[in-house]
Amino acid sequence: MMLDEMVPVVKDLLEQRNFTELKALLKDVPPQDIALMLEELDEQSIPIVFRLLSKETAAETFVEMSTTAQQLLLNAFSDTELKAVFDEMFLDDTVDIIEEMPANVVKRIINQSDPQTRAVINEILKYPKDSAGSIMTIEYVSLKKTWTVKECFDRIRRDAVDKETIYTCYVTDEKRKLLGRITVKTLLLNSYETVIGDIMETNVISVETTADKEFVASQFSKYDLSAIPVVDMEDRIVGIVTVDDALDVMEDEATEDISKMAAVTPSDTPYLEQSIWQIWKNRVPWLLLLMISATFTGLIINYYEATLSSLSTLLFACVPMLMDTGGNAGSQASITIIRGLALDEIRLRDVGKILWKETRVSVLLALVLGITCFAKLQLIDRLLFKYDYTLMLSGVVSLALVATVIIAKVVGCLLPLLARKMKLDPAVVASPFITTIVDALSLIIYCNIALWVLS
Amino acid sequence: MMLDEMVPVVKDLLEQRNFTELKALLKDVPPQDIALMLEELDEQSIPIVFRLLSKETAAETFVEMSTTAQQLLLNAFSDTELKAVFDEMFLDDTVDIIEEMPANVVKRIINQSDPQTRAVINEILKYPKDSAGSIMTIEYVSLKKTWTVKECFDRIRRDAVDKETIYTCYVTDEKRKLLGRITVKTLLLNSYETVIGDIMETNVISVETTADKEFVASQFSKYDLSAIPVVDMEDRIVGIVTVDDALDVMEDEATEDISKMAAVTPSDTPYLEQSIWQIWKNRVPWLLLLMISATFTGLIINYYEATLSSLSTLLFACVPMLMDTGGNAGSQASITIIRGLALDEIRLRDVGKILWKETRVSVLLALVLGITCFAKLQLIDRLLFKYDYTLMLSGVVSLALVATVIIAKVVGCLLPLLARKMKLDPAVVASPFITTIVDALSLIIYCNIALWVLS
Repeated sequence: MMLDEMVPVVKDLLEQRNFTELKALLKDVPPQDIALMLEELDEQSIPIVFRLLSKETAAETFVEMSTTAQQLLLNAFSDTELKAVFDEMFLDDTVDIIEEMPANVVKRIINQSDPQTRAVINEILKYPKDSAGSIMTIEYVSLKKTWTVKECFDRIRRDAVDKETIYTCYVTDEKRKLLGRITVKTLLLNSYETVIGDIMETNVISVETTADKEFVASQFSKYDLSAIPVVDMEDRIVGIVTVDDALDVMEDEATEDISKMAAVTPSDTPYLEQSIWQIWKNRVPWLLLLMISATFTGLIINYYEATLSSLSTLLFACVPMLMDTGGNAGSQASITIIRGLALDEIRLRDVGKILWKETRVSVLLALVLGITCFAKLQLIDRLLFKYDYTLMLSGVVSLALVATVIIAKVVGCLLPLLARKMKLDPAVVASPFITTIVDALSLIIYCNIALWVLS
Repeated sequence: MMLDEMVPVVKDLLEQRNFTELKALLKDVPPQDIALMLEELDEQSIPIVFRLLSKETAAETFVEMSTTAQQLLLNAFSDTELKAVFDEMFLDDTVDIIEEMPANVVKRIINQSDPQTRAVINEILKYPKDSAGSIMTIEYVSLKKTWTVKECFDRIRRDAVDKETIYTCYVTDEKRKLLGRITVKTLLLNSYETVIGDIMETNVISVETTADKEFVASQFSKYDLSAIPVVDMEDRIVGIVTVDDALDVMEDEATEDISKMAAVTPSDTPYLEQSIWQIWKNRVPWLLLLMISATFTGLIINYYEATLSSLSTLLFACVPMLMDTGGNAGSQASITIIRGLALDEIRLRDVGKILWKETRVSVLLALVLGITCFAKLQLIDRLLFKYDYTLMLSGVVSLALVATVIIAKVVGCLLPLLARKMKLDPAVVASPFITTIVDALSLIIYCNIALWVLS
């Protein structure tokens, strides 16, 4: 049953207080959909429906819900209910939730968890935000290299229930040092007597606890992993990151880059959950910065104004078109490079190749645009609208356009590389900043060409 | 050993024709890194090194290489070598490669593959590009619901080698109809005698062969799947998509959206592999379109020019700043909405909420910007640079700025929603188009405010 069909049905059953049927209905719905459905109900109904879920489903559903809904439930929960839910959860999810919750709620959660879980939670909370340590789970299967396949399967059977993944197991020595990696597939393909020390993979790709989560995610897509071990400085395994978390990280990173490209400070909270103050806070500094830098184009215009208007006031009319086109040409180049850098398709040492590519492309583009612009001024503005755009005047505008496009492309491809070189995030120098720079440059070019040709 | 360290070492060993050591060196390198390393070698060396790889590694490496390098190798291959590589490959990878290759190469590949593989390849090639069918693999484990756990393990052991994933198996009837899903984890947790019909999950999330691959990927991140079955109209399972393919799709989709937001036609080929003609082709139509629409702002200016310059030529100087700020404010809103739609965080029915949010935010932003702009004109342009920006004049500019920002935000958040409503891709109406529209609007507002206040 589709979500949109489910909501009204659930509401009816709640009306009729027909909980037996409601319970039966929810039995076959994936937790992720239950979570979405709950968001559509009124505050009182959410706990009622939630209490109808099986222990396992309840936990999975809780993880999928929005922070606001989670908080609402946590307040409705008795301590025993709260404990029940969190005992079912995987530790990395618990930590994710704790990070979002206000202090008093966190306190309750921590109090309900048994001492060693509590210890681990505090451990994980210590890792820097966005680090591998902060997104890992400690629930992995670890094996000894002297064990036989049979012994391994016994261990896996014993641990399976509360491990996030059992398909990739890690072989460690008594000091928890990572020795190798073995998959259930390999185990299945070998006889019960085989000692895993002989069949395990020894060159294991791992990440350090402090590694950036974006880097961790990139390892997944590069090496097609289903899990990656997280090790400390002494190469001891402290946890694993699983592919489902990597997927989320990748999505978040793309969102972050896109926000930065639009001159917005990224935020983890979904748009609809952000307060208008948050949104305002994420946007205003950039808009201010860009506005102020843009105002200096005004000074350029004023500087040339007298001379230009003496030549022809029609020149002013073309300024916006020149600037927009320059801006667009620039962001086309910059965003291609930024994305290439993010996906590791482009390295700093390619700067030569890129510059040569962009220059040739920009010339080809500039010519097409210049000619079109010239024709348009002659046919539409001059013939149709009777503005006195002489051949000379149209020539000046088109010439300036050609120069602008070429410069925009060059600036657009160099700036992100420069940012990377300076260890800055290329995404933040994207279109808006390039537009501002290109605006100023194109104006100066335009005015000078005009002076040079017309006077 | 890091890639950058490896390349010179490999080159040396090639120099010395010391293939035994080179072979030993490559033994422990992941295929993905070998692929990257090969790209750094000269054309003659690539086949030499490639031939030193074990059958399995060779296949995995080949899959990871760039189309150009793959073609180079295919031409160097004898038919037997070619067969060896492709026999080791998973079918979905084979198909991906075939889709990129010129006809003559494809012919060779098809000829080398055994009849039933050939049949399957042709089957898959029939599915529309970007559909679930086109990215699926047929190499999954299917079980019968009457089997015991023991029987299942026997089957899995038998098939494991050439299945892409064995951890999620699918239970089907004699007509290949999808009945349920069972994981190796569940199998491990149950006794050998258990009949899987009793323990399998029956509500399986699946996609149709024709489903868009972007949708398929979204299912993975939503339901934390490691594989998803692909079914035909009669709900018969025809293949599966595995999470590693989903990861790639997600990356590609993000890249596509980002390109569209920068007014570039998306391309699957990495930037450095694109010819300047491809790049030109992907950029020129948008630049032209945007330039032409931008030129109409010129007509607006010309229309008001006479009256404006009679009031004060200083007014022209502020036009670029007004437009840039409007454009930036607009794209901040539009890109937030576009991403929200892409991630399914925003639905069409939220339009009311969004509009209300954006209006309030825009007012807050507009005020800050307006005041700052006023101050800047008074302090810098007037006092510092001695341009005659009277209080009245500065007021006009700031007032226009306030109006522009508010309108930009409203247009910026509504346009993507409108696009979605009209079943268009919201990404293509992103910043550049919104900038152009906002430019025109802000100009008209500006000029009218000026006329109204100053005359």
